[in-house]
Amino acid sequence: MYDRQASFIIDACQYCKWSSEILRQLREGGVQAVSVTVCYHEDFRETVENLIDWNRRFESHADLVMPIREAEDIARAKAAGRTGVLFASQNPSCIEDDIGLVEVLRRLGIMVMQLTYNNQSLLGTGCYEAEDTGITRMGREVIREMNRVGMLIDMSHSAERTTREAIDLSARPIAITHANPNFWHPSVRNKSDGLLKALAERGGMIGLSLYPYHLKGGSECTLESFADMVARLADMIGIDHIGIGSDLCQGHGDEIITWMRVGRWTKAPPATGLGAPVLPPQPAWFRDNRDWEKIRAGLLARGFSETDAAKVLGDNWRRFFASAFLPG
Amino acid sequence: MYDRQASFIIDACQYCKWSSEILRQLREGGVQAVSVTVCYHEDFRETVENLIDWNRRFESHADLVMPIREAEDIARAKAAGRTGVLFASQNPSCIEDDIGLVEVLRRLGIMVMQLTYNNQSLLGTGCYEAEDTGITRMGREVIREMNRVGMLIDMSHSAERTTREAIDLSARPIAITHANPNFWHPSVRNKSDGLLKALAERGGMIGLSLYPYHLKGGSECTLESFADMVARLADMIGIDHIGIGSDLCQGHGDEIITWMRVGRWTKAPPATGLGAPVLPPQPAWFRDNRDWEKIRAGLLARGFSETDAAKVLGDNWRRFFASAFLPG
Repeated sequence: MYDRQASFIIDACQYCKWSSEILRQLREGGVQAVSVTVCYHEDFRETVENLIDWNRRFESHADLVMPIREAEDIARAKAAGRTGVLFASQNPSCIEDDIGLVEVLRRLGIMVMQLTYNNQSLLGTGCYEAEDTGITRMGREVIREMNRVGMLIDMSHSAERTTREAIDLSARPIAITHANPNFWHPSVRNKSDGLLKALAERGGMIGLSLYPYHLKGGSECTLESFADMVARLADMIGIDHIGIGSDLCQGHGDEIITWMRVGRWTKAPPATGLGAPVLPPQPAWFRDNRDWEKIRAGLLARGFSETDAAKVLGDNWRRFFASAFLPG
Repeated sequence: MYDRQASFIIDACQYCKWSSEILRQLREGGVQAVSVTVCYHEDFRETVENLIDWNRRFESHADLVMPIREAEDIARAKAAGRTGVLFASQNPSCIEDDIGLVEVLRRLGIMVMQLTYNNQSLLGTGCYEAEDTGITRMGREVIREMNRVGMLIDMSHSAERTTREAIDLSARPIAITHANPNFWHPSVRNKSDGLLKALAERGGMIGLSLYPYHLKGGSECTLESFADMVARLADMIGIDHIGIGSDLCQGHGDEIITWMRVGRWTKAPPATGLGAPVLPPQPAWFRDNRDWEKIRAGLLARGFSETDAAKVLGDNWRRFFASAFLPG
């Protein structure tokens, strides 16, 4: 018999402007683990400073959050009534040109790293480049090193060929932690059927995004439409490969969009390919971390079993992380 | 009954030019744990690069060495027939002006840090300064933070007042990992009776140095003279507070002395207060890590019991580290 108390709610991508209020909302929403972005364009030293900010939160909000250093910590966080926080980098800028920093940052709690953000990186091609040349020489080495130390490869922002090559080159399943299928909402950041099938065939996971620019209808997207997409995707790649990576950016002003898109790589204003450079309102059924049960209700209403809805809400990530974070 | 197989050999300070040969000698000598210097004058990023060098050794010499991330790893290293390596910084330069880096570096395996090297630091006064103004404002904060995360405070190179203040300010026992008593060989780097008594009264440890400039008679120092000093020191502060921190600098050329003494803080040649800027030959009874049993034999010949000799060779450090490395 299904036991909801034994299931997990896990979000594979958030980048909020962290505050006591948002940390409390994670608890109210029953979130046992959240993967938080600690690097968009930062170098190593700047990323370490972001980790230090989190170390301070772990001290000052020890009743609400705790660090996840290994997959078992997720269960420990649940038992302790706290939200486990794991770190993710959306860009390999944090390892600079130094493969030794992969192990160092893994040791400091970065469990997930994208091989590219939107642009060409030292490791591969981002989804907004005109030419996609695949995984670079250093990229092949870093994939091997990430496999060795148990750092999950994330291709959410990467171009299609680069992503397919990462799936093939990696000895371990990889993830797309925050994106949606193109069959539902075509966009540069969303993913093709072929790519999603290849990802799942190799044991990988996709975290479905709740960021309005990734949603059909944007901020007006309905929960019914979202649940329909999940059902179609489950038919296509299997329910076991689907989770949530909400990409929740709560609490920031619009300037954060400029930081994400532009960083320091251009002096021009942010491109509008992914929508205007403003933070769009969240859909009514996922305003913040207190709304996770609304998604569950939407999936149940669409006909998902309790077990399958729980898989999507977190049980799949929990199973997947348990092997992904082990040293290879 | 005493069981030598149950005892440990632990060196609380080495700075060798690490090679396969020296790592093999650690095994031949039966050393279960060695504290290796990873920072003299380096900043954070440079220190991380030294840690990366060690991560490579842990991969390439996995049959000989393994990292010590907590005190229990020392017993694990022994059981695995390998030498456990823990990291120590001889200077707080690695934390720059950023208290958050204490926790970060502890997480990366730096278990021991000196509050000063020879000069004034941001935290306190080194032993070669003309004026000793004690622990600074930042020094008080860093002592508290080191206590919290379980990073051992080391005052080997600090001036007397600064050391006494650290003993008093620290909520946990501290160490002088590599120095000798002034009653045996007066030198700026060696320690007064009063200081050694205060250290031990608060539960602290001294690691006796085998670096010729710290020895009575230098390279010609006899094992009998060394063992006599240990006996006198044990009478003064108690056998439980004495270990070895050999300060072994095997494999380097003389240029390493210039790096240690001068770093980048002056353009002048190294001062000669601690002997000529050349690496002196080791005494005949401790040429390298294969000679630990000679020290044991010297202590037994001087009349120490097997148990007390084993305490000095490593059992005291093992007991001390077991509490010193726990988070506070």
